[in-house]
Amino acid sequence: MTSPWELGSARPLQLKSGWLLVSPHRTQRPWQGQVEEVARIQVPSFDPECYLCPGNNRAGGNRTDVYVTTYVFENDFAALRSDGPTFRENEGSKGLILGESEHGTCRVICFSPRHDLTLAKMSVEEIRPVIEVWVEQYRELGAREEIQYVQVFENRGSMMGASNPHPHGQIWATQSIPNETQAEIAGQKKYLAEHGEVLLVSYLRLEEELSERIVASNGSFVALVPFWAVWPFETMILPRRRIEHLEELNDAERFHLADILHRVTAAYDKVFNAPFPYSMGLHPAPYDGEAHPEVQFHIHFYPPLLRSATIRKFVVGFELLGGPQRDITAESAAETLRRVCSI
Amino acid sequence: MTSPWELGSARPLQLKSGWLLVSPHRTQRPWQGQVEEVARIQVPSFDPECYLCPGNNRAGGNRTDVYVTTYVFENDFAALRSDGPTFRENEGSKGLILGESEHGTCRVICFSPRHDLTLAKMSVEEIRPVIEVWVEQYRELGAREEIQYVQVFENRGSMMGASNPHPHGQIWATQSIPNETQAEIAGQKKYLAEHGEVLLVSYLRLEEELSERIVASNGSFVALVPFWAVWPFETMILPRRRIEHLEELNDAERFHLADILHRVTAAYDKVFNAPFPYSMGLHPAPYDGEAHPEVQFHIHFYPPLLRSATIRKFVVGFELLGGPQRDITAESAAETLRRVCSI
Ligand SMILES: O=P(O)(O)O[C@H]1O[C@H](CO)[C@@H](O)[C@H](O)[C@H]1O
Ligand SMILES: O=P(O)(O)O[C@H]1O[C@H](CO)[C@@H](O)[C@H](O)[C@H]1O
Repeated sequence: MTSPWELGSARPLQLKSGWLLVSPHRTQRPWQGQVEEVARIQVPSFDPECYLCPGNNRAGGNRTDVYVTTYVFENDFAALRSDGPTFRENEGSKGLILGESEHGTCRVICFSPRHDLTLAKMSVEEIRPVIEVWVEQYRELGAREEIQYVQVFENRGSMMGASNPHPHGQIWATQSIPNETQAEIAGQKKYLAEHGEVLLVSYLRLEEELSERIVASNGSFVALVPFWAVWPFETMILPRRRIEHLEELNDAERFHLADILHRVTAAYDKVFNAPFPYSMGLHPAPYDGEAHPEVQFHIHFYPPLLRSATIRKFVVGFELLGGPQRDITAESAAETLRRVCSI
Repeated sequence: MTSPWELGSARPLQLKSGWLLVSPHRTQRPWQGQVEEVARIQVPSFDPECYLCPGNNRAGGNRTDVYVTTYVFENDFAALRSDGPTFRENEGSKGLILGESEHGTCRVICFSPRHDLTLAKMSVEEIRPVIEVWVEQYRELGAREEIQYVQVFENRGSMMGASNPHPHGQIWATQSIPNETQAEIAGQKKYLAEHGEVLLVSYLRLEEELSERIVASNGSFVALVPFWAVWPFETMILPRRRIEHLEELNDAERFHLADILHRVTAAYDKVFNAPFPYSMGLHPAPYDGEAHPEVQFHIHFYPPLLRSATIRKFVVGFELLGGPQRDITAESAAETLRRVCSI
């Protein structure tokens, strides 16, 4: 099958039911804009200035424990707190000014005590404890009365806003279901109602038949560039069986998840032979006490690089005011990633 | 009125009906992440290497005319083209893979022949011709059978993806109505149906009463930090009377629009005493042949800077996977902008 997008601009439908502009003829345009720095300096395994390295003092006045595998602590400058006042605001303003308090918790997960060990460089065995910590955190936070959603994510690289280079992820647990998850649930509900099938389960089946957007796979998971990918080398990791929460994974599946995470992150670093920035996050079902037969657990990787280690895709102007736009097709991105996966 | 958001995290409702997390207690967190460069070098008024300066050759093989005021040309590397094939793609895939061709036009508008003259530095008289060009472009493109929306915008500064530092804006005219405009129209339609009033007209009235989020105003326009602002110093410019399209503005109003654009952009440059990057765009009603009694014309400014000229807000991790989050309240941002407006 030839991809229709090679032919010109086109608008594939997204998971969240918006549109995306694909303009693969645009990559030759000249660039006199921002060029990023590549962090090629040798990163030490311990940095006395880093507040995430074992035993160091943090800015909030706390000290990071002398930890040996993964390490979780409450964010000292959390965007969400559990102790604030509870309020609802309307001001008799006919719905013009409306707000309510949002309680929750923000935590930091250091992947390993080593300052230089990114997910891409960790072995499958070293990634396993990270998955166990995620599972524990989901169990603990998901069981809390006041928590409806637990967002686990990683900002990797300064280009993606990581405030500290020590490899770490975050957890933001909220009282409400965040916009993005709400939109994805709405899309998945609509599909289930219309077709009697789980959107992402049927979608994976179709992608495996077509094969052109598949990046990597193992016994339990498949990584692919979704048809509706917004970021140049965006990928999605989908389980082979339907699950709603990470906690449902058995031992073999947890090993397979570590394996696919290792392969995807290692592949990214090979695309431009430099550390590949991204935001990555897990999307399980909410903990809202409702059944979610429409939801399939998945992981998103949103990496910004486009043409080289120094030229990124910008989400600006038209993208912010109109809608997403991409300069390379999902199929060509998948091909690039498949190629480096086998190196 | 004390702002409720000073009390803790909160979720004001947005124009597009999602939620936004406000965490004003978070700004003290330490930063070991990306620090931007400030462009403090003296910019020449003519740059022989710049393809937007008068008389220079462009990368596409064309030459920029020797122009004297504003200058419009077709983008040599347009994301949208009018000559591509027409197709619809479904692949019998039960709605899983769906796409269609998107035709359109992309143009570049150089604000002035001078390489160093940003909107912030242009006088009200110098901005007037830019507004006239916008009006002409809306007239011409909006009248085209195949065009439903005309998005006028500017990416200012390399941080916001401007591919060339010569002050310029862009026009992307599309066959379909972009996601953002569709979402805003849906929000405005809902409000009109529920309250019998135009959302942004009622909203402006309320904000003028409250006054705490107002930044600047003149006889025809008001600039404010909207209650639902996502970017730290985001502003919105609203007309005092209801209009759907820029073409409706009379002479005095065009002068007033130039004035408010001048004041807002000049104020931005004073916040950190350095060039202030932003994406800015106009949101008129679509040219889809339908009546849009719900739409009020407006202009958005989305600037990324947060704490200084070198520390920006990142739209990453939680923001991409969950929803928008801001670290300063809309009220404190408005206060800062009001203060510099009067300098
Ligand atoms: O055409 P320009 O200014 O080179 O391009 C800029 O604006 C476009 C529209 O917002 C973006 O798609 C590009 O990523 C950005 O670099
Ligand atoms: O907590 P960190 O890693 O310092 O912060 C990073 O992730 C957050 C959540 O995506 C963002 O709000 C911040 O802008 C970013 O710098």
